[in-house]
Amino acid sequence: MSIVEPAPRPRGGHIAALLSELRRNPLLWLLALVPAVFVVESLEPDAHTLLFGLSVLAIVPLATLLSHATESVAAKTGDTVGGLLNATLGNLTELVIALAALRSGQYMLVKASIAGAIVTNALFMLGASFLLGGLKYHLQDFNRISARLQASLLFLATIALLIPSAVRQADTGPSAEFTQQLSLGLSGLLIVAYALGMVFSLITHRELFAPAEHATHEEVPWPIGLALATLAGVTVLVALVSEVFVESVQQAAAALGMTPAFVGFIVVALVGGAAEMASAFSGARKNRLDLSVGIALGSASQIALFVAPVLVLLSYVIGPAPMDLRLWPGAVVMMLIATLTASLVTNSGRSAWFVGVLVLMVYLIFAMTLYLLPPAG
Amino acid sequence: MSIVEPAPRPRGGHIAALLSELRRNPLLWLLALVPAVFVVESLEPDAHTLLFGLSVLAIVPLATLLSHATESVAAKTGDTVGGLLNATLGNLTELVIALAALRSGQYMLVKASIAGAIVTNALFMLGASFLLGGLKYHLQDFNRISARLQASLLFLATIALLIPSAVRQADTGPSAEFTQQLSLGLSGLLIVAYALGMVFSLITHRELFAPAEHATHEEVPWPIGLALATLAGVTVLVALVSEVFVESVQQAAAALGMTPAFVGFIVVALVGGAAEMASAFSGARKNRLDLSVGIALGSASQIALFVAPVLVLLSYVIGPAPMDLRLWPGAVVMMLIATLTASLVTNSGRSAWFVGVLVLMVYLIFAMTLYLLPPAG
Amino acid sequence: MSIVEPAPRPRGGHIAALLSELRRNPLLWLLALVPAVFVVESLEPDAHTLLFGLSVLAIVPLATLLSHATESVAAKTGDTVGGLLNATLGNLTELVIALAALRSGQYMLVKASIAGAIVTNALFMLGASFLLGGLKYHLQDFNRISARLQASLLFLATIALLIPSAVRQADTGPSAEFTQQLSLGLSGLLIVAYALGMVFSLITHRELFAPAEHATHEEVPWPIGLALATLAGVTVLVALVSEVFVESVQQAAAALGMTPAFVGFIVVALVGGAAEMASAFSGARKNRLDLSVGIALGSASQIALFVAPVLVLLSYVIGPAPMDLRLWPGAVVMMLIATLTASLVTNSGRSAWFVGVLVLMVYLIFAMTLYLLPPAG
Repeated sequence: MSIVEPAPRPRGGHIAALLSELRRNPLLWLLALVPAVFVVESLEPDAHTLLFGLSVLAIVPLATLLSHATESVAAKTGDTVGGLLNATLGNLTELVIALAALRSGQYMLVKASIAGAIVTNALFMLGASFLLGGLKYHLQDFNRISARLQASLLFLATIALLIPSAVRQADTGPSAEFTQQLSLGLSGLLIVAYALGMVFSLITHRELFAPAEHATHEEVPWPIGLALATLAGVTVLVALVSEVFVESVQQAAAALGMTPAFVGFIVVALVGGAAEMASAFSGARKNRLDLSVGIALGSASQIALFVAPVLVLLSYVIGPAPMDLRLWPGAVVMMLIATLTASLVTNSGRSAWFVGVLVLMVYLIFAMTLYLLPPAG
Repeated sequence: MSIVEPAPRPRGGHIAALLSELRRNPLLWLLALVPAVFVVESLEPDAHTLLFGLSVLAIVPLATLLSHATESVAAKTGDTVGGLLNATLGNLTELVIALAALRSGQYMLVKASIAGAIVTNALFMLGASFLLGGLKYHLQDFNRISARLQASLLFLATIALLIPSAVRQADTGPSAEFTQQLSLGLSGLLIVAYALGMVFSLITHRELFAPAEHATHEEVPWPIGLALATLAGVTVLVALVSEVFVESVQQAAAALGMTPAFVGFIVVALVGGAAEMASAFSGARKNRLDLSVGIALGSASQIALFVAPVLVLLSYVIGPAPMDLRLWPGAVVMMLIATLTASLVTNSGRSAWFVGVLVLMVYLIFAMTLYLLPPAG
Repeated sequence: MSIVEPAPRPRGGHIAALLSELRRNPLLWLLALVPAVFVVESLEPDAHTLLFGLSVLAIVPLATLLSHATESVAAKTGDTVGGLLNATLGNLTELVIALAALRSGQYMLVKASIAGAIVTNALFMLGASFLLGGLKYHLQDFNRISARLQASLLFLATIALLIPSAVRQADTGPSAEFTQQLSLGLSGLLIVAYALGMVFSLITHRELFAPAEHATHEEVPWPIGLALATLAGVTVLVALVSEVFVESVQQAAAALGMTPAFVGFIVVALVGGAAEMASAFSGARKNRLDLSVGIALGSASQIALFVAPVLVLLSYVIGPAPMDLRLWPGAVVMMLIATLTASLVTNSGRSAWFVGVLVLMVYLIFAMTLYLLPPAG
């Protein structure tokens, strides 16, 4: 944006920028756990519970770095390309974790993390934003029209994703072949819808989505070199840590008494979305609920329209077998309830702390149900 | 409306009016296929696929004529009686096709065409209106209050129609006798609700529904003689063509690889609603989304509140056995999703092209699912 | 509220107040049936149908007295404590009836009366208010923002209550132990949410709920002595009559051809809510739909957040076995539809008589379905 582009800084400048970031954001101190993951993995490959805990905690700061790097690259490349990058890489962490699970054939974990990311964004991120904002402000008003448009998009995206499960569940006849064909066709449609959605939000109706973009510019963007290097390097690190996470998760979950559904739905979703949650909560505390609602609903839509179909298509390339989009019935119910809840509570354009409490309660009940639910045979 | 009623025109005048209509509306050129249907039927009664195609295409211009004739009669008979005619005969094509299927005992086709007409009106007609309007206008606002009232009516009408299926599906116990009794009682209630709805929209709260009526007066109404003759003659033609359609549909669908569910849900619904769609789309292109939303939601409500119960009651008279209102589970899910979608997207009172894309995508996914779904055993 | 508190009146004054109440409210003449219940019970303990009818009719005036007594105590104890009393004792009749059923181990009746109270408040009370108001006023506007907030609360409360049933229904695996644990955990969460809801509506955001409280002050409050004595005495009477009701209901229902589901869902709910309905309907006739919507939605929320979990917890103490929160599938569908309907129709902030007709029709269809439904084996 500035007319006089600063000269490329020496390497020391990059490190200084990184350090100032570290000082500002205590979450990044968890970065120390990244090498710990690899050390423990080579010394004690069977310490599953420890590896699980370490890898979960190590992903959080990496996701935060990834988010800041994406935004910095976006800030340098102009509004449209930047917006595209931001939207496409916004859920990079979720995508990389799911890819690791996909490669090792843990389709239940992949599907649970897709469903869980949508539910967590639509309930936990939104509910906690309402609660955190409501504890500071008596009543918070936000742009009703935008929120409804985004809630409609999320509802439609979720519905599209759910149709194979809903029809399959309702009619007991259909074969696996039918589900597979439908999942492929659907993935194509979802990606087309996603591409058209980019045209909509970045080109034809950019002004409707402006506030959310604007807000990310508040943080000082990194120089482009640092940003690109971080983007590449941290993605590799997330991929490596995700491998460890995926390898350890089954035994660790069993040891901790958690079902795979709970891990995918709740743990992975909370970990993968940590960076966006930080932005959404900070927006709520600054009485900018438009921003929080935009991040929560936009991110959930993106999972449904982009991450889910990409994983189905990639399963043909990197997975041991093709993956379909069929979710287990409880997940269908939870996703429908989550998007309906998000639609209803953003509908009035007004929030207070108790609305946040109730939305969080629905999330808590989901978590409790998944935690108590005995693993399917 | 004019004070000096014109003298009855000679027959030549009627033909001139018909010819000017033909020139204005290229859809009517398909009328040439009506005799073709009967010729092929007597020469090649086993050419099912050809007969299916011809009869589908022949119904479209007949529906358009029926629609114009109804409006012309309505225009001459004053607002209240005219509105009543318009509302009752508005779905005459759907009713006549369903009656042909009812007489030949194809209850699956009847039920699919009821469910499909509601879904097609609530998703395809609405979504395509949003898309077509949105391609021309950046943002389109429409009367939020009216749209919500109509969406509520549609939601309630659909719910009423779905209750026997939902309860039956949920509780596996109930007998066929229970479903039959419930369907009869429900049909009575729905028709009472429809009659009260007429009182509401034509007498006590006429002003809420005014814009939609006003718009139909834009086209030049036909003289009453021509209109009545067309109404009678074209209804007979639709009935005859529908016979051919219903006889040929099963073999043709099998030959074309289409399930009966797909034919009833998608093909019949699109064909039967062609005339209303033309009005709705033209309204959207003129930035009169109120009109489009009114036609789409009003027509869907009418199917649920009037066409469906009338078919149940008539099945006792003209069908081989009584028909109940129980739909297969996938249809229940689709109808619920369609009406919820219509409620949510009309809720903001504002539309843009991408909203139309997403609504159409839901419809496309339904169509794809029904196309791929193996026929139930 | 008056500055000069009147000196405690002699007993004769209390009787005069009661008599003036009796003259004003013809519903109270049914009080004559209360002794009749006990007389018949001791003379003809096997006249189940008569005892059923008498006890149903005797509960109505007792509920009305209870309601007035609660409001009178509330009026004397200041806004916050009074509001708390009002909210907690507002569904005292439903609670006492359910406790009688709980003690005798009729869990089906308890659950049906919980579900039925929510459905009856959200559909019958709301729909009849819209209809009664709409017959007098052409269009009625009400506070959209408050109504949406309350509809959101009801939706979330119902969802929370339904999750064990929905998940259980969707996934066929879970054991009874899982359902029991989940019901306990959930009951704890619901009661916490209820307590926070009290803080919200009585302390931090009292002004949002003000109109409903204000309205109850229109009736002349009773002196505190009379109010407390009535509260205690009438609660005992309701408990005694409920015993008779619960003992007679099964045989009476069988004799009258009613299923236990119908009795719990429709009869108990209408009887238990009679007093609140009288207030809601009177609000609608005075063009104060805010009041009616507040009573209907607030009372339904309270059943879900307070009465239901209290009954689960008490089942460990006074019931023959622990009760879980699992409802039969048809009840789940009805509760979801009822709360969605309430959300949609209150969404526009505008009502007319036909909206009331349609909401009542949904209720009528539920009632018809439950009446016709053969009892589960």
